[in-house]
Amino acid sequence: MTVPANVIWKLLTAIREQQPLVHNITNFVVMNNTANALLALGASPAMIHSSDEVEDFVTLSQALVINIGTLYSEQLAACKLAARRARTAGVPWILDPVGVGATPYRRAAVSALARLQPNVIRGNGSEIITLAEQTPAGQGRGVDSLHGSKIALDGARHLAVDIDAVVAITGAVDYVTNGRQVVAIENGHPLMARVTGLGCSATAVIGAFLAVERDTFAATVAALAVFGVAGEIAAERSPGPGSLQVMLLDTLYALDEATLSAKLRVSTAS
Amino acid sequence: MTVPANVIWKLLTAIREQQPLVHNITNFVVMNNTANALLALGASPAMIHSSDEVEDFVTLSQALVINIGTLYSEQLAACKLAARRARTAGVPWILDPVGVGATPYRRAAVSALARLQPNVIRGNGSEIITLAEQTPAGQGRGVDSLHGSKIALDGARHLAVDIDAVVAITGAVDYVTNGRQVVAIENGHPLMARVTGLGCSATAVIGAFLAVERDTFAATVAALAVFGVAGEIAAERSPGPGSLQVMLLDTLYALDEATLSAKLRVSTAS
Amino acid sequence: MTVPANVIWKLLTAIREQQPLVHNITNFVVMNNTANALLALGASPAMIHSSDEVEDFVTLSQALVINIGTLYSEQLAACKLAARRARTAGVPWILDPVGVGATPYRRAAVSALARLQPNVIRGNGSEIITLAEQTPAGQGRGVDSLHGSKIALDGARHLAVDIDAVVAITGAVDYVTNGRQVVAIENGHPLMARVTGLGCSATAVIGAFLAVERDTFAATVAALAVFGVAGEIAAERSPGPGSLQVMLLDTLYALDEATLSAKLRVSTAS
Repeated sequence: MTVPANVIWKLLTAIREQQPLVHNITNFVVMNNTANALLALGASPAMIHSSDEVEDFVTLSQALVINIGTLYSEQLAACKLAARRARTAGVPWILDPVGVGATPYRRAAVSALARLQPNVIRGNGSEIITLAEQTPAGQGRGVDSLHGSKIALDGARHLAVDIDAVVAITGAVDYVTNGRQVVAIENGHPLMARVTGLGCSATAVIGAFLAVERDTFAATVAALAVFGVAGEIAAERSPGPGSLQVMLLDTLYALDEATLSAKLRVSTAS
Repeated sequence: MTVPANVIWKLLTAIREQQPLVHNITNFVVMNNTANALLALGASPAMIHSSDEVEDFVTLSQALVINIGTLYSEQLAACKLAARRARTAGVPWILDPVGVGATPYRRAAVSALARLQPNVIRGNGSEIITLAEQTPAGQGRGVDSLHGSKIALDGARHLAVDIDAVVAITGAVDYVTNGRQVVAIENGHPLMARVTGLGCSATAVIGAFLAVERDTFAATVAALAVFGVAGEIAAERSPGPGSLQVMLLDTLYALDEATLSAKLRVSTAS
Repeated sequence: MTVPANVIWKLLTAIREQQPLVHNITNFVVMNNTANALLALGASPAMIHSSDEVEDFVTLSQALVINIGTLYSEQLAACKLAARRARTAGVPWILDPVGVGATPYRRAAVSALARLQPNVIRGNGSEIITLAEQTPAGQGRGVDSLHGSKIALDGARHLAVDIDAVVAITGAVDYVTNGRQVVAIENGHPLMARVTGLGCSATAVIGAFLAVERDTFAATVAALAVFGVAGEIAAERSPGPGSLQVMLLDTLYALDEATLSAKLRVSTAS
């Protein structure tokens, strides 16, 4: 079952009207871009990462985004505090396991965070495969971590069941699964890979959709569809990655229903 | 008493000629934009936040900017060291109490910093109201923190007297007060609220004007007038917030006297 | 002996084909821009700064970039761990001693890092003079630290011999020396000084060239030539520093051999 264009549009409109507060504990590379992507979308971002206040702040928020791109020990402690409080307060949260396969430190950190029950995990194919291999069912499956998002889909399905979360793989094609259903989103553009942190922005945008829609699966699909369409339009008008970053914000801000509907390429997959 | 256009222009020219060194201890979201706003204006920014060197560095500087957007304990310690040294060295300093009302941690941090005698405080209406309520005179006044900058003006006047500082409230209309006089600046554009950290940049721009003008009130008015005019021009030419961020820097860099004078909407208020 | 245009082009092509992983431990002001400059060039940037993982990560990388712009004690510790491991693993590394002359803390930090044998040091004239004066041969030479890159060249030559590294001075003219040879690069544009962190981006771009070329001197010349040409083209098309930042990324991404060759102003100097 896919998510129809009118539902996606309705959720985007809800963000623009409600301006939900999205609490981000994210990496230093993308803080500015992520905040700007959320503002352009219509949400209210806050980047708050001190253990002295993350628990207080997350209860004021409508969603929590945790991204480990430039993780360090104090920030990891804050992430755990915030994620635990999010669960008890009923605030949906999403985990972006940036580069999880690169070092033992990242693998351990993401394992610990994944146990705190994120509602959604979004990563690229390699990241999702690394996570899937760490689950009991995934041990020794040995999937090649250099393959694309389609190859990672099998791992994503198992991971989604194991940790009871929606798992999103982004790449040339994005896939969203809850372990049973799979939706493919074929929007986006290769130039997007030449701008740092657009995956991180996609994660934050999912956070904004989670803030206005309890159906986690539909919210995740809608977010990646909107972000993919905006990125695709921006890339088509950009001579290079500098312009793309600027036009992506302009496009997110101005996206209308007719343009969104005409561009959407969302379908069920398996 | 307002600040005439030729005085505002003279101060901007002084920044361009003297290129004052502005020391910023600021948040990770806006470091890049703030540095670029100061460079486009003509000042020399430095972002230096380690307790190992902030005291040495602030004495080399012509102004200090402290912004608590992504505060954490080590940074708060560095802010206190820098602010104390700024006072003893006669370096003017400005406090940006980002989101002060959101958590007890922020309220306590800003209270401690406000006791270190900032020359200027700049915030939005909610932030200034929160601060005004924390002063002895403000206890229990219970102003609705969701109201705009005009509503906050009464609190700002009391706050200015209580801590002997110039207080600036930015919003649809900006107000600057020293407790006796009030000037209103009606420049700016609603699209500016969709770019992260433009309030933080405004604070840093005030810092640059403090660096070249001892009359704190005039410097603050001039800074917000220049920033408002540049933002207004940039927004009028921008299809969205991505372009606005780029054009704001281009406009600050190229702003000439005729354009500034033609656009200025600065007046006394009460 | 200079570096011919076809060699510079060959190295740029090698980066685009090999997409080398460049590990950056850099300052919070420029993280985003540096990552984007490396991506636009064709390299794969990673910004990883925790002592818990820098040693693991640097061995996966083809080059390491260390920049002290917003240094603090934990980051300095991580820089030392990463630099030591880079040497033992044969990963080339480059040091950017941002503002080294400003405080005793910076001088001590850079002295400690310089002893860990960087392959290249890149700074502006003042920074290189400060470093040259700290070497045994440089004690008491008392060069005026406010002079430009040409004046710093004498110090750079001594520094290069003392620490057995290539030294690059960037400014109106860039100079690269290994203590014996000197090459001058007359590309670039004055507007580049009005965008924060372009020196830091230049350092990171040198890192990318080191990743694909063992001849450190040729790699450094080629990197500054490519960056200078791209900056020059971007500046000529930009009404101000905001546009320059965007167009620099677009230009790095799209730079072709004919444009590069036509613009290059690289020559031997003394």
